[in-house]
Amino acid sequence: MSNIVLSNTEYSVVGTRPVRHDGTDKVTGRAKYGGDFQMAGLLHGKVLRSPHAHARIKSIDTSKAEAYPGVKAVITGKDLPVASMENPGRGVRFSSENILAQDKALYRGHAVAAVAAANSHVAEIAVGLIEVEYEVLPPVINVTQAMEDSAPLVIEDLTTTELGERTDKLSNVASHFRYEMGDLDKGFAEADVVVERAFRTSTVHQGYIEPQNAAALWNADGKLTVWTSTQGAFAVRDSMAQILDMPVSDIKVVPMEIGGGFGGKIPVYLEPMAAILSRKTVQPVKMLMSRTDVFESTGPTSGSTVWVKVGATRDGKITAADASLALEAGAFPGSPVTMGAQCMFAPYDIENVRAEGYDVVVNKPKVAPYRAPGAPIGAFGGEQVMDEIAREIGMDPIEFRLRNASKEGTRRVDGPEFPVIGNIEVVEAAKATEHYNTPLTGPNQGRGIASGFWFNIGMQSSCSIGVAADGTISLVEGSTDIGGTRASIAMQAAEVLGIPAEDVRPSVADTDSVGFTFLTGGSRTTFASGWAAYECAQDIKNQMIDRAATIWEVSAEDVELVGGVFQHKSDSDLKMSFKELASQLNGSGGPISSQVSVDPRGAGGAFSTHIVDVEVDPETGKVDILRYTTVQDAGKAIHPSYVEGQMQGGVVQGIGWALNEEYYFSEDGQMVNSSFLDYRMPVSLDLPMIDTVIVEVANPGHPYGVRGVGEVPIVPPMAAIANAIHDAIGVRMERLPMSPGAILEALWDKNGEGVQQAAD
Amino acid sequence: MSNIVLSNTEYSVVGTRPVRHDGTDKVTGRAKYGGDFQMAGLLHGKVLRSPHAHARIKSIDTSKAEAYPGVKAVITGKDLPVASMENPGRGVRFSSENILAQDKALYRGHAVAAVAAANSHVAEIAVGLIEVEYEVLPPVINVTQAMEDSAPLVIEDLTTTELGERTDKLSNVASHFRYEMGDLDKGFAEADVVVERAFRTSTVHQGYIEPQNAAALWNADGKLTVWTSTQGAFAVRDSMAQILDMPVSDIKVVPMEIGGGFGGKIPVYLEPMAAILSRKTVQPVKMLMSRTDVFESTGPTSGSTVWVKVGATRDGKITAADASLALEAGAFPGSPVTMGAQCMFAPYDIENVRAEGYDVVVNKPKVAPYRAPGAPIGAFGGEQVMDEIAREIGMDPIEFRLRNASKEGTRRVDGPEFPVIGNIEVVEAAKATEHYNTPLTGPNQGRGIASGFWFNIGMQSSCSIGVAADGTISLVEGSTDIGGTRASIAMQAAEVLGIPAEDVRPSVADTDSVGFTFLTGGSRTTFASGWAAYECAQDIKNQMIDRAATIWEVSAEDVELVGGVFQHKSDSDLKMSFKELASQLNGSGGPISSQVSVDPRGAGGAFSTHIVDVEVDPETGKVDILRYTTVQDAGKAIHPSYVEGQMQGGVVQGIGWALNEEYYFSEDGQMVNSSFLDYRMPVSLDLPMIDTVIVEVANPGHPYGVRGVGEVPIVPPMAAIANAIHDAIGVRMERLPMSPGAILEALWDKNGEGVQQAAD
Repeated sequence: MSNIVLSNTEYSVVGTRPVRHDGTDKVTGRAKYGGDFQMAGLLHGKVLRSPHAHARIKSIDTSKAEAYPGVKAVITGKDLPVASMENPGRGVRFSSENILAQDKALYRGHAVAAVAAANSHVAEIAVGLIEVEYEVLPPVINVTQAMEDSAPLVIEDLTTTELGERTDKLSNVASHFRYEMGDLDKGFAEADVVVERAFRTSTVHQGYIEPQNAAALWNADGKLTVWTSTQGAFAVRDSMAQILDMPVSDIKVVPMEIGGGFGGKIPVYLEPMAAILSRKTVQPVKMLMSRTDVFESTGPTSGSTVWVKVGATRDGKITAADASLALEAGAFPGSPVTMGAQCMFAPYDIENVRAEGYDVVVNKPKVAPYRAPGAPIGAFGGEQVMDEIAREIGMDPIEFRLRNASKEGTRRVDGPEFPVIGNIEVVEAAKATEHYNTPLTGPNQGRGIASGFWFNIGMQSSCSIGVAADGTISLVEGSTDIGGTRASIAMQAAEVLGIPAEDVRPSVADTDSVGFTFLTGGSRTTFASGWAAYECAQDIKNQMIDRAATIWEVSAEDVELVGGVFQHKSDSDLKMSFKELASQLNGSGGPISSQVSVDPRGAGGAFSTHIVDVEVDPETGKVDILRYTTVQDAGKAIHPSYVEGQMQGGVVQGIGWALNEEYYFSEDGQMVNSSFLDYRMPVSLDLPMIDTVIVEVANPGHPYGVRGVGEVPIVPPMAAIANAIHDAIGVRMERLPMSPGAILEALWDKNGEGVQQAAD
Repeated sequence: MSNIVLSNTEYSVVGTRPVRHDGTDKVTGRAKYGGDFQMAGLLHGKVLRSPHAHARIKSIDTSKAEAYPGVKAVITGKDLPVASMENPGRGVRFSSENILAQDKALYRGHAVAAVAAANSHVAEIAVGLIEVEYEVLPPVINVTQAMEDSAPLVIEDLTTTELGERTDKLSNVASHFRYEMGDLDKGFAEADVVVERAFRTSTVHQGYIEPQNAAALWNADGKLTVWTSTQGAFAVRDSMAQILDMPVSDIKVVPMEIGGGFGGKIPVYLEPMAAILSRKTVQPVKMLMSRTDVFESTGPTSGSTVWVKVGATRDGKITAADASLALEAGAFPGSPVTMGAQCMFAPYDIENVRAEGYDVVVNKPKVAPYRAPGAPIGAFGGEQVMDEIAREIGMDPIEFRLRNASKEGTRRVDGPEFPVIGNIEVVEAAKATEHYNTPLTGPNQGRGIASGFWFNIGMQSSCSIGVAADGTISLVEGSTDIGGTRASIAMQAAEVLGIPAEDVRPSVADTDSVGFTFLTGGSRTTFASGWAAYECAQDIKNQMIDRAATIWEVSAEDVELVGGVFQHKSDSDLKMSFKELASQLNGSGGPISSQVSVDPRGAGGAFSTHIVDVEVDPETGKVDILRYTTVQDAGKAIHPSYVEGQMQGGVVQGIGWALNEEYYFSEDGQMVNSSFLDYRMPVSLDLPMIDTVIVEVANPGHPYGVRGVGEVPIVPPMAAIANAIHDAIGVRMERLPMSPGAILEALWDKNGEGVQQAAD
């Protein structure tokens, strides 16, 4: 079931569902991904990766590899500029060390050396000829262990930042922060019911289909060109400039098509190695990751521990909420713990509230953003506790949310006041769904509800437009198209000009060919790059009005564009369609084109409430998703199909995270399930159709009311499913994934049966 | 010797000689030409070409070719849309028939069928399996023969346009026109001296290094992408839209680097065939020409006959001039005869003047533009007659030119009045050269002078600019860079912004990625695309002034950009370099970018006067160029090295045309010298250093005073060398090339020795 609530109908293109412009390329295999890159003289690079989760590198002997026929260059961490810097800052140091290990390998899969050779087979052989002497160190493989005073130090000189102050204390805790409003003691004193629980989540990966790739050519003039599948060509340019210690203007990044990112294709991995190998060989170098490389060496999201305590009155008013989150950052600081803390109570208007967090390094790959980073982890704990409170006081969980819903003017735990938001409208729409009003029908079935919040961001975008003589326009944007944004951006320009979406030809350009554009992430692309397209189209419209006025010899103030027709406001004989005027441009003063950059501030937060029905098999512990409805405020759905696709995709990733996905680590820190056979992501057979309800509470901070849509749908699923499982079988799942084994153990605990059951 | 006359020095970037931005790519082989195009699934196409200069195609049997293993598709003329049009217009008909022959093959090398196959070897074999039944017709291989009443008709339904009126007369003369001013009879009556001569020139080719190439992908969504080395991506798009009968918006043209064009890479040849083969196979198809294909199947410039009659008084005043030009158009109408007629008397202010012309079809490849098309042909005759008149009245040929020089206000034979031009300044600069004032020193040496004119054009151009955080800018243009125009366009933007030329990163974009830009030709690129860059940089400057004002919280009217520094007009504490402000943009309101399109009308005509010293070997007839000086008005030389390069390149092509180059045809219309071994172009050993004198009479129609420079240098050489030969050995050379054989024959004629001499 697909549905849109509160939609307005004032637009002719916005809100429709045209075929995406890149659709044919994508379904016929014509779209060029990083793996398709070819060039004359191309060398192939391979990486030697640490077999140890934590080890001191005592020596690297590359001589045999260098001598092997067909090998063109071998590099190690010493080839990075950071190796010869006197006192590198933490930023450049950590970014660089994650590319190629310096003194220590900090996780299994950490790159230690790389080879460029005439072909990938030779490169692979040469990698095997590099001799590394390691001193193996005890690894730190989860946040609990890492925070113990006796824990080995992952980064030996890492000092803790405590509540904003850098201290001298050496620790795996990179930082500890706290947000607080109101009077927590007073709030809990007012509570009739208090629930307190601790939760754990495991490391999970975004699981994009396309492994990381990069090709680079460091030209003899010192200019570097990089071809890579990335969420942000300009972000890659900035990262490369930092790691390679060179100006951005010496770097051109050509974004290839991308086979999924979800945040994981923001950091660079292979790109700097390919660049340095190219500088050494003065030939282009291409590198590709295997799936195991992707799991072991790119950023998943954090494992965590989350403690939550909430108090409420019997009539359903939350009086206080407290949380403490500790998130694994991987080998270098920078987990999304702040965002987890900021988001977890955001759906609620709570007077007395606190959230603190710990950013903790461990011997795992450095985490990368993963769709609403941090928020699903906070919500998994927070939304279960809210569910438990509602149950304890006997209130419907949706009524409980409505009773406490945040709204315009509510302050978030970290301070900001909400502008116009659609939280209440979303919860009410969820309450009104047929799904929520249909009873469950069988044993071991349960229904769960959870809400979620994500900020969405704005940031800089650029767009250029040229008008063709046949009345179509070309549109150049800097945003990687992951989820149909060529269409959603083109549609916003088409709306301004009164032309069909099909009459726009969108292209995604390299960093030399369009103004600065921040990455595709933060649910910003349709919002901010769409806004750039809107502004650019406005400029085109104004230039065309001027031209029509010139042709008609009237004042431009008397000409308007209505429904794709330029017309004189009072002389009805003077009218020209967009196509008619376009065909006259070259002969009446020249072509019309424009480019505009924007940095919009009005990003509007997104709220989502999910309803899920499950059935638990008490014999096997397997959870089936019977029905799933996701309700979300899109502000305005430019292309509803792609909004629905984002909502469904987020839910599906959340279902995988909820039920199956996790990195299994051996005690020495080796990931033992680094393939898609062993790291189980949901496939279509595991899933029902995910129903969607788009709510449209227009964002006043955008010309069409757009909010971001891509991230918030992954926030509620784990909690919603946990709540449904509790509803079904009466057990509260405190860790992810809620795999069959974990369900069985929880059932045995509940029934006092213990592990012997397994032997029956 | 390199010299600039009248240069001003008010600029900091314009007029300097930075290294071109694409220099390293070009000299290291990194630049990607059409031949470098690669793509997954690429098919290779080959063309079956007519072995006859004129033949009716009775049947084509492609069945054996189609059955050959590895062959994917075979096409003939019937696959072009024109074949199924009811009454196609002449434009689409002639454009289409030149791609693939319809009922008749009109020249040796005319494409008759094409094959796409898994590789080029299979395609080549398959071409050999196509069976064509021809009815061979008598060919018409030069303009004289073609204009005879009894000549076979090349295009059997071609009717003559006589003085602007379409007639019913079937003829090889496509059109006959006449320009006339004043009273010719009166003018000749006033003359003391009248000289009348007839001249002939042969077919010559531009001789670019890189053969034509094209790759095309006709995607399943109906969108066509074409990769080709072309002088104008938008021009290719327009041609393809016409020939393939589809809207321009369904076509994207990606311009590859170009290995020379000189006008010859404006028409399409392989592109429509590659497109149709791709449509049939739904795979990308690439096609490349051999050198023989280039000679036989692409457009050279016209062979011609030119008759000239000029009268003057004893004191050196030209009283009347008359000319008749007949130019071969090749197999379809469209020789550059009108331009030849318009240019040939343009250096002179003549009261009574007439020029008429004939556009004549023959069984040769359709001519293409070649550097100042038509003008060198007119000048070869006109400037020899002027030389002869000056000699007859005993006046120095430079004084004779000064006495009669056209200037602002002079009317051209076809009507227009000259704006500010540098003709007199150029002739005076030539007179002042050390070269002209140094006597010749040996026997059989001679000196010749000739002048030339070319219009230069404006037309539409677009440019976009984005500012990077490190204070550099990226600049996107639509003009193919043939002669260093990335540099000359970038410099005009840099000048506005007060930054070094090296801080601009120019790119040449595809037709989807920049606003409409007319082709690189007509000496327009530095003029018009440079102007677009100037205007775009002005917009960037204004946006940055606004931003500085915002940051300083002052009025934008009080901020100016001086020498690359933004500063407050009265508060000297407020100043920021371009780089400083650039680094603050993203944080102070967002990035800055812009795109501007222009259609400038102020193209300024170019004049050039050449001085050449030759030595003729009377034994062999070989002409050595001893010294050559070319003097030319550039308006303003943005990058003097590239202006000098254009001047030198034009002269060198002119020397080849003068002394050696010509298509040798057998009687049945076969070109018998279709290789660079047999078609002799000058190499460095044949040439002295070509000295250049740049004169700068600023063009008031351009912000920096730019005129075009690329074409006029090829106008005078043939006449200048002929005049020098006459000065050396006293013979008047009435046909091109002035090869050793032709010189010997002329010497024998002069000496009354006849051809027997050859037997001695």
